[in-house]
Amino acid sequence: MSQDAATEGDLRNTGMSLKHDREWDYELDRIVEEIEERDASRVGLQFPEGLKRRGPAVADDLRELCDDDVTFMLSGQPCYGACDLDTYLMRRTDVFVHFGHSPMKESDKIIYVPLFSNVDPFPILEEAVDELPDEEVGLVTTAQHMNRFDEMVAWLEERGYDVHTRRGDDRLTYEGQVLGCNYASADIDADQVLYVGGGKFHPLGLAMEHPEKKVLIADPVNNVVTVADTEKFMKQRYGAVHRAMDAEKWGVIFCTKIGQGRMEIAEEIIEDNDDAYLITMDEVTPDRLRNFDMDAFVNTGCPRITTDDGPQFHKPMLTPGEYRIAVGDEPLDSLSFDTFHGTW
Amino acid sequence: MSQDAATEGDLRNTGMSLKHDREWDYELDRIVEEIEERDASRVGLQFPEGLKRRGPAVADDLRELCDDDVTFMLSGQPCYGACDLDTYLMRRTDVFVHFGHSPMKESDKIIYVPLFSNVDPFPILEEAVDELPDEEVGLVTTAQHMNRFDEMVAWLEERGYDVHTRRGDDRLTYEGQVLGCNYASADIDADQVLYVGGGKFHPLGLAMEHPEKKVLIADPVNNVVTVADTEKFMKQRYGAVHRAMDAEKWGVIFCTKIGQGRMEIAEEIIEDNDDAYLITMDEVTPDRLRNFDMDAFVNTGCPRITTDDGPQFHKPMLTPGEYRIAVGDEPLDSLSFDTFHGTW
Repeated sequence: MSQDAATEGDLRNTGMSLKHDREWDYELDRIVEEIEERDASRVGLQFPEGLKRRGPAVADDLRELCDDDVTFMLSGQPCYGACDLDTYLMRRTDVFVHFGHSPMKESDKIIYVPLFSNVDPFPILEEAVDELPDEEVGLVTTAQHMNRFDEMVAWLEERGYDVHTRRGDDRLTYEGQVLGCNYASADIDADQVLYVGGGKFHPLGLAMEHPEKKVLIADPVNNVVTVADTEKFMKQRYGAVHRAMDAEKWGVIFCTKIGQGRMEIAEEIIEDNDDAYLITMDEVTPDRLRNFDMDAFVNTGCPRITTDDGPQFHKPMLTPGEYRIAVGDEPLDSLSFDTFHGTW
Repeated sequence: MSQDAATEGDLRNTGMSLKHDREWDYELDRIVEEIEERDASRVGLQFPEGLKRRGPAVADDLRELCDDDVTFMLSGQPCYGACDLDTYLMRRTDVFVHFGHSPMKESDKIIYVPLFSNVDPFPILEEAVDELPDEEVGLVTTAQHMNRFDEMVAWLEERGYDVHTRRGDDRLTYEGQVLGCNYASADIDADQVLYVGGGKFHPLGLAMEHPEKKVLIADPVNNVVTVADTEKFMKQRYGAVHRAMDAEKWGVIFCTKIGQGRMEIAEEIIEDNDDAYLITMDEVTPDRLRNFDMDAFVNTGCPRITTDDGPQFHKPMLTPGEYRIAVGDEPLDSLSFDTFHGTW
């Protein structure tokens, strides 16, 4: 993932660098209770990349609270989202704790600890309302700010807004939640949507998925209000599509991660195109694809890999929709954001 | 993996670049027969890194020989050895073909296609015998030259040698075979061992594991004969051990790949050391460890990662034996090569 500092309004890069330091509630008591209740001897802990360095301290705290015979294991698998559940470690431990994301797979062995942000969203909302002229407004946020969602709705209503929210579809856990690959919670009856959260990828997807709406970004972590601008992103994507138009050999990537498997889409492409080859993998990285002698790739897995990491691959990397444009099945202006809907 | 050109006798780096181009027998007929016999509709193909670019052509050849309703899938998982079996793809296909390595796990769904080298080993053997003064000689080679093993034994015997060979232990498939992590086939009653093969890692392990023997490397691919020299390698390892001696926080890596799981060793370390944390992962890469705030790492998985890739990690990376030296449990001169024996 790119960690470049992105300029305001430039949605090409998302970043994990944060201006505010945050504290998290790891819900140690709930975890200890589960460990005791199940008489667990092996406990797996999985943290998102940005919090992996906190893992040993959390393990220390848990060791102090638990019997000596409990072994704690930290997942070293890359973890950027709810799809990155370490199923290997999960299957081999009695209790498995996944920190920082909402549930993608339910199992009574898994404890999801959401890690809600302790950053106060209201100062930045105060600035945001200056740029929300209409009475009707949609409100969406990411998992880490869900703990303040109801308060934010009430806050906006107090200021005279008619706040539209919805749960989206089965892929989403909370009302008003967006994922990097799903913006169904913004399918609401308002011309302006307020996105509260950090990062650039979510509001970008939101703006691409709902081009008829004004998407206002209120980032309580970096303390900025911006209007989502998809222009630079669109240029980058059209560039990738154009470079792939001459491709003869296509690598069609099927991602094996939970929640990312779109086999029908992958198989449809290889059935129609004799020069397309199905490649399966879990982590989709430039290194792994370098040894494949392809002219271009189509990624049916996480859209973030295609759009955020895309420029790092040695050959053009397209979404399934962009592939159809590149091979001439769809017109250029059909370019859209790649999203996952429903269940999987 | 490092692909630096290594100088002769310098065993610190192994390489995948080859001077001779090789052709391989993919055993298409055997694969097609299995596909038809099982009425398979999904077939997985897994190639080692160096041969991944041949994958699409092999898939094309198979498509021509099979019914249209058979879907071929290429594994995009990294593959450097027999441990890198793509079990995800294996479980989700009717027939799974693993090219280039001998079996690490048996299943009647898996076809192992060994990909024996077609390089003639006898010209380089002719040069090698000048440096084998004793009558008694051990002979070992890697999986890819096993097809000529009996001929090589006979060839040496014709020249008056008493050739010692053995199968090694359960981890090895063939008589005379070595793996990067197992040199039990060189436990023979001779003071000189002839290793026929490319790369630097195998003869290095061989020389480290059998320091009392002279290890002669006959590399038929790069056309060189050298005597294995462990000095530079030892210096690098002692350097890593010394740098780790001040470490407070240790990351103990348990590799989840088939054939690499040494949980007892990992658990022993974390039980004895309160500042050691168990980290589980499949691919052990510098990127994945960078987010863990440790002072040093111990790798209980593939020794090749520790010794070949070691310098690329941001903190010292030790084998379990080296860890015991670094924490003062064993004397400095106990440093040895990390090998895997028996079954797993």
